[in-house]
Amino acid sequence: MFDSTPLSFTILGTGALGGFYGSRLLLGGASVRFIAHSDVDWIRAHGLRVDSPLGDQHHQPVEVYADSDPIPPSDVVCIALKTTQNAQLPDLLAPLVGEGTVILNFQNGLTLEEELAARFPQTTVIAGLCFLCSNKVGPGHIVHLDYGRVSLAALDKRGGDWLPRLQAAFAAGGIETDVQPSLRAARWRKLAWNIPFNGLSVLLDRNTDAIMADPEARVLAERLMQEVADGAAACGVPFDPDFIPKLLTITERMAPYAPSMRLDFQAKRALEIEYMYRRPLREATRHGVRLPAVETIASQLSILDRPA
Amino acid sequence: MFDSTPLSFTILGTGALGGFYGSRLLLGGASVRFIAHSDVDWIRAHGLRVDSPLGDQHHQPVEVYADSDPIPPSDVVCIALKTTQNAQLPDLLAPLVGEGTVILNFQNGLTLEEELAARFPQTTVIAGLCFLCSNKVGPGHIVHLDYGRVSLAALDKRGGDWLPRLQAAFAAGGIETDVQPSLRAARWRKLAWNIPFNGLSVLLDRNTDAIMADPEARVLAERLMQEVADGAAACGVPFDPDFIPKLLTITERMAPYAPSMRLDFQAKRALEIEYMYRRPLREATRHGVRLPAVETIASQLSILDRPA
Repeated sequence: MFDSTPLSFTILGTGALGGFYGSRLLLGGASVRFIAHSDVDWIRAHGLRVDSPLGDQHHQPVEVYADSDPIPPSDVVCIALKTTQNAQLPDLLAPLVGEGTVILNFQNGLTLEEELAARFPQTTVIAGLCFLCSNKVGPGHIVHLDYGRVSLAALDKRGGDWLPRLQAAFAAGGIETDVQPSLRAARWRKLAWNIPFNGLSVLLDRNTDAIMADPEARVLAERLMQEVADGAAACGVPFDPDFIPKLLTITERMAPYAPSMRLDFQAKRALEIEYMYRRPLREATRHGVRLPAVETIASQLSILDRPA
Repeated sequence: MFDSTPLSFTILGTGALGGFYGSRLLLGGASVRFIAHSDVDWIRAHGLRVDSPLGDQHHQPVEVYADSDPIPPSDVVCIALKTTQNAQLPDLLAPLVGEGTVILNFQNGLTLEEELAARFPQTTVIAGLCFLCSNKVGPGHIVHLDYGRVSLAALDKRGGDWLPRLQAAFAAGGIETDVQPSLRAARWRKLAWNIPFNGLSVLLDRNTDAIMADPEARVLAERLMQEVADGAAACGVPFDPDFIPKLLTITERMAPYAPSMRLDFQAKRALEIEYMYRRPLREATRHGVRLPAVETIASQLSILDRPA
C-alpha cells in the first residue's frame, strides 16, 4: 500500500499539545524530535512526562532541541505553538523545512495553512485539527485529561498521499484520526465551537458547563455559532442543518471544561484573537457578510488582551 | 407669570440622586419630603448630609418617611429609585399621587414615562434627565462630585405648564435645567452615552477615562453609540450629525468616572439592564431595526447580573 518506514517528526513547541502528540507518536514507533523553549534544559536532564488516561509516560532520554540548535531534517514538522507566536513562525520553520517536508499544523484558526503554503511553497501543508483536553502543569510535564482525536485535512492534492501514513503513525500511538475532505469546511466547523466558548469563557469568567447551564448564556453562544455558520456559508462551506444542534448537545455532555483562552487569560498570556477571530471576520467581510456579535466579543477580547 | 407658591416635593428614594436633588430643592425654599428605605431611622436621628462643591449641607431635622408611612400629598413626586425596583413602583406610587400630581421621573431608560402615564392617567408625567455624578457613601450621607444639570421633558401638553415652575424650583436651589421639546429624543440621546459606557465599564472592568484612552475600546464605544443612533432614527428621533462626535469629546474631557452600573456591579447590586438595554432594543425591533452589538453586550450583562 504505502511506504512503511517509520516517519520522523519534529514537534515545534513542547507544550500541552505538542508534548502530548509527540509522546503518542514516539510510543507508536515514530522518530520524534521536540523543540522546546523555556524548558529545554529541564527536559534534557529529566525527560518528558505525560500523564494520561491512556497510561502515564516518562520519556527519558528525549531528543530535544532549543530553537537555535541545528536540527536534523524530519519528514513531518508539527506546529504546536500558540498562534500568538506566529510572527516568529517563518524564522522558526525556515531551517526545519526542505523540498517535500510535510507541515502538519495543529494551530487553531483560519487561513493558517494558506499562509504557510505561500511562505514555504516547497512543502506539503496539512491541517491537524486537535480535539484535545490537555494542560502543561510544569517544565516537561503534561497532563492529558480527555479526548485526543485529530482531524486531518490536506490543503491541496499533494497532501492527499501523506494522509494514510500520518493516520498510521497516529494510530500506532493510540490516537484516532479522521480525514476531512475540505480543509476550510473543517476549520470553520472548529471555529463554531472555538469562537463562542473561548471568548465567552473569558468575558463571562466561567467554564463551558456554566455557560451551557445558563439559558441566556446558551442563547448567546448559539447566536455566535449561528454567525459563524453565516460566515462559513458566505465562504462557500455551509454547515449541515443539524451541525449546530449537535455541537450544543456535545458541549452539554462534556465534562466541565476551561477553554484554552480562559487558561491563557488567567495565566496573563497573550490571547489567540488574531487567527481565531480576526481572520474569520476578515474572510466573512471579504465575502460580503458581517458577523456583528462575533465582532463585538472580538473587540472586547482585544481590549482585555492589553492591560488597562 | 405663574403661581409663585413654593412647590412641595416628595422624593421617592433618598440615594445618591434623590438625596442630592432633594437637598438642593430644600435649599431653594421648596417643601421636601424624603422617602427612604434602609436608613429612615438613621436620617430621623442624624439628618441628611450632602457634601458638594456647591457647599456641604447638613439638613436636620428632615421630613423623612418609610414607604409604609402615611405621607402627605405633594405637588411633585420625584422618582429616584433604581429601575431594578420598578416592579414595586406602582405600589409605592399609588398612595402618593392624586388628580394632577406631577410625576417627575429621574430614572434612566426608555418607555418609563409612557408606562407611568398608562398606570396613573390622572397625573402629569415629566422626565427629568439627570447629568449628575454623585455617590451615596453611608446612611443618610451623599457625596456630590460633579455636574448636576437636569433636562426636563414633558410627556404631553399637560406637563408644559409645569416646566417653568419646576425650572424655578431647581434654579432656586442652584441647579441648572433646560427644557427638551421631545422626551423621546432626549431619552435616546441619553442612552447614547449610557448604553456604551455603563455596559463597557462593567464588561471591561474600567472607568470612562480608560475606555476613551484605549483606541479599540473607543471604537467599540463608538460602534455602540452608532447603533443607538440607528435605533433613535428608526424610532423617528434621529440624532444631529455632530451629536456623537460631540458626545465623545465631552466624555474624553470628563474627569475619570465610574458609571453607575459599574458601581452597582462592584457592590453586587442588580444591574439596570431592563430599561437601559432591553426596552431600547425592543423599541428598535418594533421599528424594524436590530442593534446587534448592543444586543450582545446586553446579553453579557444579563448573564453577569445572575451569579454563575
